[in-house]
Amino acid sequence: MKAEIITIGTEILIGSILNTNGRFLSQKLSDLGVHVNYQISLRDDFNELVEQINESINRSDLVFLCGGLGPTEDDLTKDALAHVLNKEIVIDPNEYDHLIAFFNKIDRKMSENNIRQARVIKDSKILHNDWGIAPGEVVEYQNKKVFLFPGPPKEFEPMVTKYLAGNIGEKNDILIKSLNVVGVGEAATEDRIRKLHIEDSEISINTFAHFSETEIKIIAEGDDKSSLKIKMDNIISILYKEFGNNIYAEDNVTSPEALVNLLIEKDLKISFAESITGGLLTSKITAIPNASKILKASYITYSNKAKIKDLNVSNDTLIEYGAVSSNTAVEMAKGLYKKGDCDIAISLTGEAGPTPSEQEIGKTFICFNYGNKLEVKECDFKGDRREIQERASKYVISHLLLKLN
Amino acid sequence: MKAEIITIGTEILIGSILNTNGRFLSQKLSDLGVHVNYQISLRDDFNELVEQINESINRSDLVFLCGGLGPTEDDLTKDALAHVLNKEIVIDPNEYDHLIAFFNKIDRKMSENNIRQARVIKDSKILHNDWGIAPGEVVEYQNKKVFLFPGPPKEFEPMVTKYLAGNIGEKNDILIKSLNVVGVGEAATEDRIRKLHIEDSEISINTFAHFSETEIKIIAEGDDKSSLKIKMDNIISILYKEFGNNIYAEDNVTSPEALVNLLIEKDLKISFAESITGGLLTSKITAIPNASKILKASYITYSNKAKIKDLNVSNDTLIEYGAVSSNTAVEMAKGLYKKGDCDIAISLTGEAGPTPSEQEIGKTFICFNYGNKLEVKECDFKGDRREIQERASKYVISHLLLKLN
Repeated sequence: MKAEIITIGTEILIGSILNTNGRFLSQKLSDLGVHVNYQISLRDDFNELVEQINESINRSDLVFLCGGLGPTEDDLTKDALAHVLNKEIVIDPNEYDHLIAFFNKIDRKMSENNIRQARVIKDSKILHNDWGIAPGEVVEYQNKKVFLFPGPPKEFEPMVTKYLAGNIGEKNDILIKSLNVVGVGEAATEDRIRKLHIEDSEISINTFAHFSETEIKIIAEGDDKSSLKIKMDNIISILYKEFGNNIYAEDNVTSPEALVNLLIEKDLKISFAESITGGLLTSKITAIPNASKILKASYITYSNKAKIKDLNVSNDTLIEYGAVSSNTAVEMAKGLYKKGDCDIAISLTGEAGPTPSEQEIGKTFICFNYGNKLEVKECDFKGDRREIQERASKYVISHLLLKLN
Repeated sequence: MKAEIITIGTEILIGSILNTNGRFLSQKLSDLGVHVNYQISLRDDFNELVEQINESINRSDLVFLCGGLGPTEDDLTKDALAHVLNKEIVIDPNEYDHLIAFFNKIDRKMSENNIRQARVIKDSKILHNDWGIAPGEVVEYQNKKVFLFPGPPKEFEPMVTKYLAGNIGEKNDILIKSLNVVGVGEAATEDRIRKLHIEDSEISINTFAHFSETEIKIIAEGDDKSSLKIKMDNIISILYKEFGNNIYAEDNVTSPEALVNLLIEKDLKISFAESITGGLLTSKITAIPNASKILKASYITYSNKAKIKDLNVSNDTLIEYGAVSSNTAVEMAKGLYKKGDCDIAISLTGEAGPTPSEQEIGKTFICFNYGNKLEVKECDFKGDRREIQERASKYVISHLLLKLN
């Protein structure tokens, strides 16, 4: 089954926003075994819209029109589709009531224009919008389906989640599994998978790099679900044999989430003394629900004075070896551990740039203090300031996942 | 001048990555006054590529083909373009030498396939790639231009930056200015601008929301640069009169960057005691070069114990009013200020969710301690955990910009 996604609006074309709707819908469709052949972004221009919708309906089974359902005269998606399909546009009484109720609820006067948002294509299936005003629609036409979804991601994403699977119709059976790998780069992962010779006509395996993590995505597609299931299980067990502990999670649990869950499971508390990463590492952990179960405090000791005062690093060490040194990292991690808030204390000190002072840009010392056992890592991270901070933070998370798994 | 951007590769169509190249190039083209009418993503499929390139060349002046220049047999962009234009593909001797030198330098054996990356379309203008292997190209055809750029953003972005402006040819004069606003929402900003009645046929003004900030983008386009300049200056002064201090920066300096620069200029040090934001706020500041000049230390006091030990919050306050309370925020900010590392101490305590404990999710108390003067804000931030943390962090930055500007 072939699909294409048309996003409508100027913001994407002038580069003001990223096309997150296109990505979101592509991912959901892929997970349902639908092949997205085209993503197209264009403006609210009636003629261009008509031309594009025509072309897309001709070559694809499912066409998604995203955006351009707002109240203004610039919002032409519905009109262009009605023109192409030669259908009438009517006011839907339920959607009209919803509109009135919506404006009553937020105690704002409805403008004349808003009534446009109760207009629907005659005989379409209406997808009610619980997150905003403009309804979505599914219009059938010559064995094909055209979907309309409102553009704001806050409405678009929950509507796609709610309505997509139930409305795209018959398709092949499909099974999808993602295995998430740390500690092996994407190229090496792909190489090792290729050497296993496990793909067949019903199975495709792709790898994707997400910073220091690699996603192995296995898609099994065919007529017979039970035979697909056997093949899939077999491949997963081969991949686990190949990558072992480097597989830290399944189905795109992020590495911070996996780490928080692992620490909760093992009842271990963690704490960070961040210099180079300046809070970024702790923020990756605290972004995860229940982080407060495994993190009680962290310290961003940016200055030498803070390292001395808060972490008991000795002034002599800072003078003799510098703030960016293995010795300083060790004393930071020791001082942090002594505070008694954690089972694992981790310190990071390094040179984030853009102007180097003591060391080369990217040089970073990380000390993992597991109580009586210290482990120091000297790393050279590449990139600009933000990337170095990002890579250093991800390194610590990956390292802990490998260590504790 | 009309342009369209074609990005080639499966990753975007299965939703594995966002189309950042499309956005990057759109923005650069808009800044040069070129109208991007279409962004199209498709797979490495020879026939689909040929069809799309044909269509795009017919309707646009500039066509950008991004990606599909790699070494494998799947990389078909160049072949499809050569087919459409009926041109030969040849090995470029300079690019061949570059390839050999590249592999020598990284001490890796070049595979047979890599030679494909020295293939170029005959008589094209070669855009040498200093950031990778595959060169870019500009091919002229019937008064139109087709650009080829390699897909990896690490190569794509610097190449676009280096080669775009010099190769797109004649165009109208254009002036662009962005004013960045905090403290006024996008809808209100747009409304106030509309009421000023300052647009004319040569001037367009658009607003874009970036979280709590609003960008006002003014584009002046016409034949006479000096008259455009006068119009532009006039509009900017009207907008400054309308929005005053709410304009915190120009040309998309981010709000953390503006704040760091402002604090450096005023020689003020800042420090954060973060509970709800868990390091995110400090990380926004430390991501900016020279942050170490204005931030010496921050504390992520997630637990009650840490609030007591590190910030001297009284146990009685925590028991009587709760950790998420104005009283606790005040004591945190007082304790932080007493440490002596800053001129402005800011504390945040709140309920990030997903499960509420003391207060409703989103409820946040923020205390700004400017030495002898305290200011407490009670906020209700909307969204999920990450959004609440994001909004709280941005709120503090915006508030400080308005206060200190």
